[in-house]
Amino acid sequence: MKEKIIETSIELFDQKGFKETSVQDIVESIGVTKGTFYYYFKGKEELLGDICLTYIEDLVRQQEQILEDPNKDCTAKLYDIVYMLINNIKTQRRSARIFFREMRHLNELHLQEIKAKRRVFRENYQKLIEEGITKREFKNNPNPDMLTFGILGITNWSYYWFNPEGEVSEEKLAEIYVDLILNGIKKSD
Amino acid sequence: MKEKIIETSIELFDQKGFKETSVQDIVESIGVTKGTFYYYFKGKEELLGDICLTYIEDLVRQQEQILEDPNKDCTAKLYDIVYMLINNIKTQRRSARIFFREMRHLNELHLQEIKAKRRVFRENYQKLIEEGITKREFKNNPNPDMLTFGILGITNWSYYWFNPEGEVSEEKLAEIYVDLILNGIKKSD
Repeated sequence: MKEKIIETSIELFDQKGFKETSVQDIVESIGVTKGTFYYYFKGKEELLGDICLTYIEDLVRQQEQILEDPNKDCTAKLYDIVYMLINNIKTQRRSARIFFREMRHLNELHLQEIKAKRRVFRENYQKLIEEGITKREFKNNPNPDMLTFGILGITNWSYYWFNPEGEVSEEKLAEIYVDLILNGIKKSD
Repeated sequence: MKEKIIETSIELFDQKGFKETSVQDIVESIGVTKGTFYYYFKGKEELLGDICLTYIEDLVRQQEQILEDPNKDCTAKLYDIVYMLINNIKTQRRSARIFFREMRHLNELHLQEIKAKRRVFRENYQKLIEEGITKREFKNNPNPDMLTFGILGITNWSYYWFNPEGEVSEEKLAEIYVDLILNGIKKSD
């Protein structure tokens, strides 16, 4: 039942917005009583915190699994992370949009916890870039932090427009973006 | 007065959200009557449409000015657009966030108009990439549309984190991102 409540709320929050969705809307959608809802969650805010935390924790977990692989170089790990993020859209697009859009409605405690996880994700990414620079797979760059934000932007933005059912597959898009990140678009002389 | 209403609303919509801000909140903030508000706008939705439309029209106008320059090659125009977008953050961050976040609250007519302008901005960008490919400044690429979304993501994302008062200037960030887009991060053998 908890899963069902979360699933339905993700749909409603994404469609109507967090503020515009009441607990009443959620329980009516499932056909249960408010009592059932409050058995699992203290309130709407806790549920939102749960959705955002699950979303970002899942990404960090997948990312760290990729980074720990001792048999892959930084370039291969970069591809795996880009692919993981794009592949994530199919199942997590709604959660991602709620994450990006509704975070300001979280209470302070949830917000701190979620921002910390988000920071871990970004710092892990930056460490990979820095490791690639040290190992001379990537060019020296005095601003790996800015570079990381830029690289993150490429995939984060895809949550707003990429259609996993469309002509370009997740694999293909990951290839295009890793090629952009690694080699750029300039024609060499 | 119209300008004052728009300015105040941008602040309130960004802070509290569009749905959570009432016309009462807006007029109280300025110290005028609701009558004054309704003299200029039919309602909150029209005001939101106005904010979003002004935001995107201004970007398209600046972009087309850059693209029309007969003395610059595609690489220089790419730099100018990236710089224009990053430079825009200082004054337009709030409008941009409202644009990205609140668009679903627009009425159908506004939404169509704004989406059309947004499409023009993206198509102009894509044409620049394609022209660069034709002129052999950029490498041949079978997916200039996907590439354009990726390049857009780099700068669009910066609205969420870039601090124009921070250590890295707009010029520097534009340089870092144009270098990423042109040359990538891979160390050549």
